[in-house]
Amino acid sequence: MADFQFEILKQSTSSKARTGIIKTRNGEIKTPYFIPVATAATVRALDSHDLEELGVQCTLANTYHLHLSPSSETVKKLGGLHEFMSFKKPIFTDSGGFQAFSLGLGKEHNINKLGSIFPQGKKSEEKDTNLARITDNGVKFKSTRDGSTHLFNPEISMKIQSNLGSDIIMAFDECTSPLSDKDYTKKAMERTHRWALECLNHKDPNQALYGIIQGGEYQDLRDVSTEFIKTLEFEGIAIGGSLGKSKKDMHKILDWVIPQLDDRPRHLLGIGAVDDIFECVERGIDTFDCVAPTRIARRGHLFITPNSGGNLKNSFRINIRSSKHAEDRNPIDKKCDCKTCKTHSRAYLHHLQKVNELTYFKLATFHNVHFMLKLMTQIREAINEDRFEKLKEEWLN
Amino acid sequence: MADFQFEILKQSTSSKARTGIIKTRNGEIKTPYFIPVATAATVRALDSHDLEELGVQCTLANTYHLHLSPSSETVKKLGGLHEFMSFKKPIFTDSGGFQAFSLGLGKEHNINKLGSIFPQGKKSEEKDTNLARITDNGVKFKSTRDGSTHLFNPEISMKIQSNLGSDIIMAFDECTSPLSDKDYTKKAMERTHRWALECLNHKDPNQALYGIIQGGEYQDLRDVSTEFIKTLEFEGIAIGGSLGKSKKDMHKILDWVIPQLDDRPRHLLGIGAVDDIFECVERGIDTFDCVAPTRIARRGHLFITPNSGGNLKNSFRINIRSSKHAEDRNPIDKKCDCKTCKTHSRAYLHHLQKVNELTYFKLATFHNVHFMLKLMTQIREAINEDRFEKLKEEWLN
Repeated sequence: MADFQFEILKQSTSSKARTGIIKTRNGEIKTPYFIPVATAATVRALDSHDLEELGVQCTLANTYHLHLSPSSETVKKLGGLHEFMSFKKPIFTDSGGFQAFSLGLGKEHNINKLGSIFPQGKKSEEKDTNLARITDNGVKFKSTRDGSTHLFNPEISMKIQSNLGSDIIMAFDECTSPLSDKDYTKKAMERTHRWALECLNHKDPNQALYGIIQGGEYQDLRDVSTEFIKTLEFEGIAIGGSLGKSKKDMHKILDWVIPQLDDRPRHLLGIGAVDDIFECVERGIDTFDCVAPTRIARRGHLFITPNSGGNLKNSFRINIRSSKHAEDRNPIDKKCDCKTCKTHSRAYLHHLQKVNELTYFKLATFHNVHFMLKLMTQIREAINEDRFEKLKEEWLN
Repeated sequence: MADFQFEILKQSTSSKARTGIIKTRNGEIKTPYFIPVATAATVRALDSHDLEELGVQCTLANTYHLHLSPSSETVKKLGGLHEFMSFKKPIFTDSGGFQAFSLGLGKEHNINKLGSIFPQGKKSEEKDTNLARITDNGVKFKSTRDGSTHLFNPEISMKIQSNLGSDIIMAFDECTSPLSDKDYTKKAMERTHRWALECLNHKDPNQALYGIIQGGEYQDLRDVSTEFIKTLEFEGIAIGGSLGKSKKDMHKILDWVIPQLDDRPRHLLGIGAVDDIFECVERGIDTFDCVAPTRIARRGHLFITPNSGGNLKNSFRINIRSSKHAEDRNPIDKKCDCKTCKTHSRAYLHHLQKVNELTYFKLATFHNVHFMLKLMTQIREAINEDRFEKLKEEWLN
């Protein structure tokens, strides 16, 4: 795709961390970057003016959700996603493939993305299991909205993403679970590879397509998948699928895969914890997307930096629901210069969430997104000045 | 109260409509004005930056809700309401009296404020009736949050409002229902009058206190109440209680009461429909408060001006939930210059509300508040230029 380019600006001397710039027809993205997720064409609780004010470089919208409502045909009629959501910067879309996992296999195995088994009695939100069926022809699934039946396959996913008009799209893949055995993981990987070729055949030439490496936590499969995907003409490479049962597994998998890759941009799907960002940037990841920072904000978890007491143990968060904040006139983070922190106290936010006021969700989400973007800016600056390891040490020591 | 003043700027020659300016220690309010309601110290879905951007002159917060959470003592410790909600302009608070009505009598009679009986099977939201008991000593009620028992009386209401630190406070009154008979309405009125004296005795001298005229839909009672309340040293006069069973009843009541009043500012409690605003401004009301514009926004009803098809029949609204807006690329109101209308289509708002996105509530509320404030600006301009009747005609013809 003529409009898509990736330029590496600085390669760290002591790790695989690097800064770069992704150029798209709708603007540039300085990397490493955390992409706020706009599931249903909005970053939940924020409007496009908020995104502008936050200096958000790009967002990632959800093919599955937009397909179900309002439909990609409707978005196309309305001028495409950028016009629809009034966001004139680069937009990523995922492929809908992960939904095959989360509505199908993931439900059966009672597992979430990072491989932690859901606590007993706390299954994921939908009630029915087996809402999705994966075959070589694609994924047949029932809408959780109205029970209607849908089919996703490479051709359909490419068509939907073309309708949406996003800048960077993902290949349609099958994401296995950490509990999938090697045989199944291999089968799913091979299917993903066949689908990768179909995606390339059916892609919209105006969009940049990222191929997705699968193979679960099996080194030989990851090797095969990396070799297969990297030889194809994808504009970028995403690392997907099960990243093992622990963070160490995830690091191991990245250490297998990334040294084999060339200079194309590398995306890690669904990861967004502070420590993960540092570990994965160090291993050479350029972009991340994850709903966690916005989702946890809605649930009361607000980010704080090390300067304000954030550390690995508290996951760089306070829980604003705690009664200890009920009379705390300090902002969430004294060192934070976001609008929420410059204007409001922990006590006010505690009050708003306690009485379930809508205003809470905006103020909390604004802060957490600001935190993530500022973290990424600091990481880019550190890499450019060849002191990334020092910054990582300051945060994770 | 030394800091409180009301100046009449222009008296309409052909009606009782007038413009004025209320001066408080926290700034001025140009009247007539519709006061957005900030029930729990936030205009639902808007933050204080939004209020600033909208040019909101003042808000009205709810004594009952803030008493239950976080408590007026907590708000006081946190520097008072202005500091707590980061809103540095005038703040009204109500007295908590209306809650005696809405949790007690209102529930028994299955009635809402304007006197319309709730449709069968659609009672008001709380499940228990008789949560409140009204005696001469005040109103005993159970919290709908946690079942705890509370007492409001004039002294307590004045104390709570003093703790909150609002600029303009309301006397503690008993608001009767349109189904209350004359005997009961008279008793309640007499109680309100005794309470009015107690409020004056216990009020915070830094706050401006509005007395409330009761008397239901009975002319002789309204006359008695008007005469009683207006002779007391209130900074302003509010008209409360049952305003009858129809809009005509309400107009009649205002026509009885207002000609007897002097030049103090006049507030009408709980009224906010477009036609009511015109009718009541014409009859001499200076300020209004009502949750309707923000509440209906959340339910999909978005205001449009006559230029964009708004009229009495459609209550100057579209219902964004209607599927006819699903592919409508127009803004809510083509003539509106609010941020929502300048940025987003009806189709996008339709989509957001359909999938229940938090962003919807912000964008919708922002528009409806902007609409109300612009309407009030137009009304003030029209009065100043002595063409209020013409403007009213253009809107309501």
